[in-house]
Amino acid sequence: MSIIVKKFGGTSVADPQKILHVARRLIETKQPGEDTVVVVSAMGHSTDHLVALANEVAMDGDQREMDMLLATGEQVTIALLAMALQSLGQPAISLTGPQAGIHTDGLYGRSRVVKVDADRIHNELKQGKIVVVAGFQGLCVDEITTLGRGGSDTSAVVLAAALGAPVCEIYTDVAGVYTCDPRIVPNARKLTEISYEEMLELASLGAQVLHPRSVECAKDHGIVIHVRSTFRSDEGTFVKGVEALETQNPVNGVTLDLNQAKVALLNVPDRPGVAATLFQAIGKAGISVDMIIQSVRGEITNDIAFTVAAGDLEKTKKVAEQIAQDIGGGEVVFDPNIAKVSIVGVGMVGRPAVASSMFEALSSRGINIQMISTSEIKISCVVEKARAKEAAQSIHEFFGLEQSVQPQLV
Amino acid sequence: MSIIVKKFGGTSVADPQKILHVARRLIETKQPGEDTVVVVSAMGHSTDHLVALANEVAMDGDQREMDMLLATGEQVTIALLAMALQSLGQPAISLTGPQAGIHTDGLYGRSRVVKVDADRIHNELKQGKIVVVAGFQGLCVDEITTLGRGGSDTSAVVLAAALGAPVCEIYTDVAGVYTCDPRIVPNARKLTEISYEEMLELASLGAQVLHPRSVECAKDHGIVIHVRSTFRSDEGTFVKGVEALETQNPVNGVTLDLNQAKVALLNVPDRPGVAATLFQAIGKAGISVDMIIQSVRGEITNDIAFTVAAGDLEKTKKVAEQIAQDIGGGEVVFDPNIAKVSIVGVGMVGRPAVASSMFEALSSRGINIQMISTSEIKISCVVEKARAKEAAQSIHEFFGLEQSVQPQLV
Repeated sequence: MSIIVKKFGGTSVADPQKILHVARRLIETKQPGEDTVVVVSAMGHSTDHLVALANEVAMDGDQREMDMLLATGEQVTIALLAMALQSLGQPAISLTGPQAGIHTDGLYGRSRVVKVDADRIHNELKQGKIVVVAGFQGLCVDEITTLGRGGSDTSAVVLAAALGAPVCEIYTDVAGVYTCDPRIVPNARKLTEISYEEMLELASLGAQVLHPRSVECAKDHGIVIHVRSTFRSDEGTFVKGVEALETQNPVNGVTLDLNQAKVALLNVPDRPGVAATLFQAIGKAGISVDMIIQSVRGEITNDIAFTVAAGDLEKTKKVAEQIAQDIGGGEVVFDPNIAKVSIVGVGMVGRPAVASSMFEALSSRGINIQMISTSEIKISCVVEKARAKEAAQSIHEFFGLEQSVQPQLV
Repeated sequence: MSIIVKKFGGTSVADPQKILHVARRLIETKQPGEDTVVVVSAMGHSTDHLVALANEVAMDGDQREMDMLLATGEQVTIALLAMALQSLGQPAISLTGPQAGIHTDGLYGRSRVVKVDADRIHNELKQGKIVVVAGFQGLCVDEITTLGRGGSDTSAVVLAAALGAPVCEIYTDVAGVYTCDPRIVPNARKLTEISYEEMLELASLGAQVLHPRSVECAKDHGIVIHVRSTFRSDEGTFVKGVEALETQNPVNGVTLDLNQAKVALLNVPDRPGVAATLFQAIGKAGISVDMIIQSVRGEITNDIAFTVAAGDLEKTKKVAEQIAQDIGGGEVVFDPNIAKVSIVGVGMVGRPAVASSMFEALSSRGINIQMISTSEIKISCVVEKARAKEAAQSIHEFFGLEQSVQPQLV
């Protein structure tokens, strides 16, 4: 018997009718000789509801108790999905993360999976059951811990690895991974496949299809992730090793992150350790910094600009203002009206024309580039938020991403 | 250090504000040198909500999956109450039934507790924490099982026994145990104490203050149950061994059960085994029978009348009609418009005048008695439902239950 792991997210199991739909889908697509393990998230907005309850009793509730609370969301879904499968005549059993043998490192709210003891799952599968596992959660000794938001994807991939399943199907409310968000670029194209590396860049850039950790884990264990629609039967996008890719387009996707804000320290003294002091303080405050640009203003001062998540702006300003005071100089300015537009593609390696083409696409529309950051397979530009969608559209068009084989660049 | 176990039911923790109230109450009443273990139920109607979800995906869902589903209700409450305590500066930790070491016999939906391994609770108490335990649930090997509705009372008493706590406080939305439901008899008196035996009769008669199993368990282990109000600070009613009772009133309470229906098989052949056949079939259908009266109609036939819960009437009629056909004779009649009024008191032992006084109270108002059943410390009469409240009132008045020392009967 081979095993397939399928994961359904919160929108796919948002109400009893959708849970019944998932149950029917699982029964219809069950292949002879193939065992099914299903990982599910909490129903729709139930996690938000639980968080709201917690905020009413305590601001900043203890993370252990938050895990205790939030783990109930997935437990509700697994019980309901198992019942739905049974009511349709399909033997099934639900298992919490702890029952499924998912052992974590014990960090509340952001556990990593250290081991999967899959005996119970194998035993249940042998009895002909579909095994329904609660995503997002695991056990450390006797404690319930969660993997953090989006952790259900990771649960699914980790189980696929532990069970020797070659493919992990992630069912979602979109049909696959697109060259750009179709709400921004209507003729965006669904990719048939994409490399782990590109998917990682896309995932952390806010494409919101797959949790980055799950992609990393799939890459480490050679699991193919098949991202597909809960509500359609056609194939989606396969996320897999780069050697399997047929086409080598320079760019595979354009992403837009509207949830960014820019902070800058102007005129800071040009002496060693200033940047370190600043970013140590910011890191200590639990704020993640994305792009960092340091530029020379004159002989003795620099400007340091960086971006943070929009929600962290107020906290960041306070830290930055304190640091400016401490280091004796510098003015703090900030701008919440920015966005980050990025292109991703393993094919851009060794093709210098890709970057200049992106800048050309933006300048042809008169869109000003405020910051630039690059990696091996990604180029990001900060632009004015009001023109961000237009920026993504112009880049998508310039590279011809709507075509499956793009015009070759030098 | 002594230990006290306190239990708060669903209405006491129905929303975040009520949970904060419970947290404040726990902190205010915490005695120096006394450790606190709190058992809680699911919030308000959350169990009903979960059952409704289950019914939407599957009629008659698998009991194992129902337990998996319902156990989440208490888990939500324990996390929120622990957070509330912490937010008020009181160290606290939540434990699920399994984490609290409550081991059950593994029967889904109606487990009995077989063992409590209290090491974890003791360890947490030693660290100065209030330990918040999920009622209603336990563990059998690796499986989550529930104790059935009302099982949180049992969880609390079982923990008191395992922890060597002499008293288990059950907080509820009434101030204690009354001589009658104050909504029926406005001058009903709150009892300062009541025996286990009387409380058992009252609990199973529908007084709905305490789950009968919890009273049995308290009796077996000599735990004093203190039933008191969540919202008032005065003492409630102590449920304890009879030897400790100061007064020996013949009657301690009047109860009314409006959720009854009467079924009768008339003219059934008078031969051995007829009653057995009937009640075996009814038992097999999962129907609990309360009162049974068999009367001789003539030379060769009998009448058998019995009462069941009103919700079981339709099912019972079908079974009774089938049996009537099988045994060749008998007419099935039924009456949903009945109620059962009962008096309870250990003091009625050896006082034959108690029964006749009850009948006199009813006849003085012209209320007809349809069925009578008696035990050592209880007398129940079936009366017309429309006059049931009046029946309870007249009995309460006749025995002078509003006075703490009642007029002595012969």
